[in-house]
Amino acid sequence: MTTSTTSPLRVTVWGENHHETSEGDRSAMAERYPEGMHGAIAAGLRELLGDEVAVRTATRDQPDHGLTDEVLDSTDVLTWWGHLRHDDIHDEIVEKVSQRVLDGMGLLVLHSAHFSKIFKKLMGTSCALAWRSTDDAELVWTVSPGHPIAEGIPHPIVIGAQEMYGEFFDVPAPDELIFISSFTGGEVFRSGCTWQRGKGRIFYFSPGDQDFPVYHHPDIKRVLANGVRWAAPRPGAAGAAQGVVSMPRPYFDGARLTGGWTEGQVDA
Amino acid sequence: MTTSTTSPLRVTVWGENHHETSEGDRSAMAERYPEGMHGAIAAGLRELLGDEVAVRTATRDQPDHGLTDEVLDSTDVLTWWGHLRHDDIHDEIVEKVSQRVLDGMGLLVLHSAHFSKIFKKLMGTSCALAWRSTDDAELVWTVSPGHPIAEGIPHPIVIGAQEMYGEFFDVPAPDELIFISSFTGGEVFRSGCTWQRGKGRIFYFSPGDQDFPVYHHPDIKRVLANGVRWAAPRPGAAGAAQGVVSMPRPYFDGARLTGGWTEGQVDA
Amino acid sequence: MTTSTTSPLRVTVWGENHHETSEGDRSAMAERYPEGMHGAIAAGLRELLGDEVAVRTATRDQPDHGLTDEVLDSTDVLTWWGHLRHDDIHDEIVEKVSQRVLDGMGLLVLHSAHFSKIFKKLMGTSCALAWRSTDDAELVWTVSPGHPIAEGIPHPIVIGAQEMYGEFFDVPAPDELIFISSFTGGEVFRSGCTWQRGKGRIFYFSPGDQDFPVYHHPDIKRVLANGVRWAAPRPGAAGAAQGVVSMPRPYFDGARLTGGWTEGQVDA
Amino acid sequence: MTTSTTSPLRVTVWGENHHETSEGDRSAMAERYPEGMHGAIAAGLRELLGDEVAVRTATRDQPDHGLTDEVLDSTDVLTWWGHLRHDDIHDEIVEKVSQRVLDGMGLLVLHSAHFSKIFKKLMGTSCALAWRSTDDAELVWTVSPGHPIAEGIPHPIVIGAQEMYGEFFDVPAPDELIFISSFTGGEVFRSGCTWQRGKGRIFYFSPGDQDFPVYHHPDIKRVLANGVRWAAPRPGAAGAAQGVVSMPRPYFDGARLTGGWTEGQVDA
Repeated sequence: MTTSTTSPLRVTVWGENHHETSEGDRSAMAERYPEGMHGAIAAGLRELLGDEVAVRTATRDQPDHGLTDEVLDSTDVLTWWGHLRHDDIHDEIVEKVSQRVLDGMGLLVLHSAHFSKIFKKLMGTSCALAWRSTDDAELVWTVSPGHPIAEGIPHPIVIGAQEMYGEFFDVPAPDELIFISSFTGGEVFRSGCTWQRGKGRIFYFSPGDQDFPVYHHPDIKRVLANGVRWAAPRPGAAGAAQGVVSMPRPYFDGARLTGGWTEGQVDA
Repeated sequence: MTTSTTSPLRVTVWGENHHETSEGDRSAMAERYPEGMHGAIAAGLRELLGDEVAVRTATRDQPDHGLTDEVLDSTDVLTWWGHLRHDDIHDEIVEKVSQRVLDGMGLLVLHSAHFSKIFKKLMGTSCALAWRSTDDAELVWTVSPGHPIAEGIPHPIVIGAQEMYGEFFDVPAPDELIFISSFTGGEVFRSGCTWQRGKGRIFYFSPGDQDFPVYHHPDIKRVLANGVRWAAPRPGAAGAAQGVVSMPRPYFDGARLTGGWTEGQVDA
Repeated sequence: MTTSTTSPLRVTVWGENHHETSEGDRSAMAERYPEGMHGAIAAGLRELLGDEVAVRTATRDQPDHGLTDEVLDSTDVLTWWGHLRHDDIHDEIVEKVSQRVLDGMGLLVLHSAHFSKIFKKLMGTSCALAWRSTDDAELVWTVSPGHPIAEGIPHPIVIGAQEMYGEFFDVPAPDELIFISSFTGGEVFRSGCTWQRGKGRIFYFSPGDQDFPVYHHPDIKRVLANGVRWAAPRPGAAGAAQGVVSMPRPYFDGARLTGGWTEGQVDA
Repeated sequence: MTTSTTSPLRVTVWGENHHETSEGDRSAMAERYPEGMHGAIAAGLRELLGDEVAVRTATRDQPDHGLTDEVLDSTDVLTWWGHLRHDDIHDEIVEKVSQRVLDGMGLLVLHSAHFSKIFKKLMGTSCALAWRSTDDAELVWTVSPGHPIAEGIPHPIVIGAQEMYGEFFDVPAPDELIFISSFTGGEVFRSGCTWQRGKGRIFYFSPGDQDFPVYHHPDIKRVLANGVRWAAPRPGAAGAAQGVVSMPRPYFDGARLTGGWTEGQVDA
């Protein structure tokens, strides 16, 4: 179909930037992710989506964690990767991000960000899971083949080395379950899930870890690109989320229960 | 965002064409829907979607009900309106349409087509409901404001005169509930529902009746245009639905339960 | 079917107890709800469930809002009514109640408690809605007739006088939609919804207001009794919710990708 | 909680009885399932549910496949196992079973019965899947730990030898996803799913095959017993499903749109 040209989707790739800068992990990360994980994720989106997106990065160690009002107000889709520094994120920033999601901003929550403040706040559950970081391969199977996030994705995605994430994953039943992973140890995981909260679309996707080069994997890059497209706000849903509304006058005029009805009684 | 220009979405608007041609209704219909209800629906889609779509109509009284293999194979989204002649539709055609939906063709099921063979087959339930065709107004409220089908739709849509459709509507719980209607008599109805079946997307929308000029209503035309866009097949989901697959070889090699496990026993 | 006799379900009916005690509302409430709304709700549960339940009440103005560890630890199902004093509830109590729900305690959220801290925390959304408190009748229609909460409930429930609550109701799409209400003004509302969070079952039910004697309505009492039964924790789900689990050893031994597979490549 | 003693749940265990009687499989089956698979399933239900149930069996080779009106009318929950003889089942019997499910009878669909006429009719999809019958172990993981069907079930269930069933499983998105299985070959499968159709509850559970003694596995027997309990009809949902209802008179009297409203126009 033809679509009129409009301005590009504005994507902010947020990274915790801890492993990239910590004493212990810095040199290994420099090999694996020379631009940081956020840099790799941003590069993958630019590569696959081209002019369709305008991508920038933001990190924890910037003022306001890089998420100033100006940045948030000009972000259509935010991706979030965090692991060891969830507790350092200021509650006011979490509150603002949450409000922006309810107002329509898309949110991609990646891997260990299942334990981020923003995800736990939007889910209302513990978001706990089982894990093992040793020496597993992961297969990512599509269970919703008509879903736009699954477009062009092989069945399964084959990831040679990856941390294991297993069930039970304590999240609300997803609105849409798109991917289920298996691991060489026999575990399974609902690895691709979506939820709508307010006007905002949320996609959680688990593959991707600091210890493995998963964000360079061509199929993983494709899933993230598809996810960003899917999470884009709808034009008709723009603007702030509805607050409480006091309805001034009714649509129907003079409507009363007809004479035959008594409260709590129904005509069989 | 920018999207590359591609070929238009191919829409077939199917109409029962009974009221338009029957002795009793013909003259009233000629006033209300000079091109038939299918003609009005097609005109609304052309008006709102322009070059984005290529719209044609098909009717029950044509050979193969207008749904030859050639037509079905070149249809991306099919809309279906029927009322009094459901039983006249050949089972082989219903079977073909159903298979095309599972293969990815979108389907819009309109008003009294809740009792069509194709809808009942895809739902697996009776699709019964309550109704009263006298003198009601209908309000259509959005309960999923971020959904693409609700884009640009007022809350509520106000329909001055319409047949009443009420609960219980015996369908599977919809994947997405988008609209709920109220009527002046006090009834409610889940008037906009979606389901995915195989790779195909189905949208049921109840407003629209032979006795009222609802398909000329600007908001109803907008809902149908949004619905057609939403139901479009995904490029990555193209081709026939999967049949049963005999898996020739496993991904994991030599995987056995480790020595410690016995069937039916789990290590606490 | 026969079920072995076990100990009664322990229900705590929590009430804000503001309107019952405030200068402005006290005398009207003493007429309408001489035992308070919490007293009326508790009496309805005792009347309909008899020996099946052991019901007590707790209110905001008690120490720890009546929700000490001892009370919470011996509560199977908690019902919550609040309106004007949501902000007064201590965050630590909200945190404890939330954790108990994730651990399996059932929760009924009633009417204006849609804006309670506990409900907003578990939902992750604003929980805003539209309202008008004038002179409306409400009809409550069942859209899930096989659900245990709908057992023995007329279709519709007729409530002669009630505050109007209307859409859009900003909550996550419910796991189960059981009731939809209409009002004389033409509005609709998803008035009976369930969600699972962790191991806990949550039921929101909107009919019931301080200005109208709705909690004496026989059908409303029946819905609340059904809701308490439905929200009861499952024996097999007892105990604390799962935390994060570090999996010590895999089930499959020696499982590797077979020689033919390369990361990111799939055999067609 | 205490529940008054009532009559037992009436369960009919239906078996195709082909492998049990065919030349090629008869002797192996006599070792593995001396009473047939239906006999083993019935014995497991009696063992675990005792006086709570009255269990009988019915098979394809009986008149009316053992499913006379008398049998169906006195069945609360039907379990269905079939494999090679789906096409032999009379359409009229399938129609009757389907109607009984819509009227409230519970249905458990087991293993290869994913391709039974009754399941495909109720689902509306192809119900195709991937499979490999060689030498796999299966792990069954719980993803809905608060669900009654998961009560007392280990996480995971360990099945030493079983046929592999893999995704994509072409069914409607389940109302509730309870179990996900992994196999030693790396495949995954949504092995425990529920759907509501009309007033009836449907539970599909895949573990269980003619070539493996899975129906003697204590955890599998427990799942089936839990499933039968869960699928029991609700007293309040008894009687025939609703047909189409012509509503004779409205609840609200004289309700009209107020003067200010025009069709298709909404007051902002």
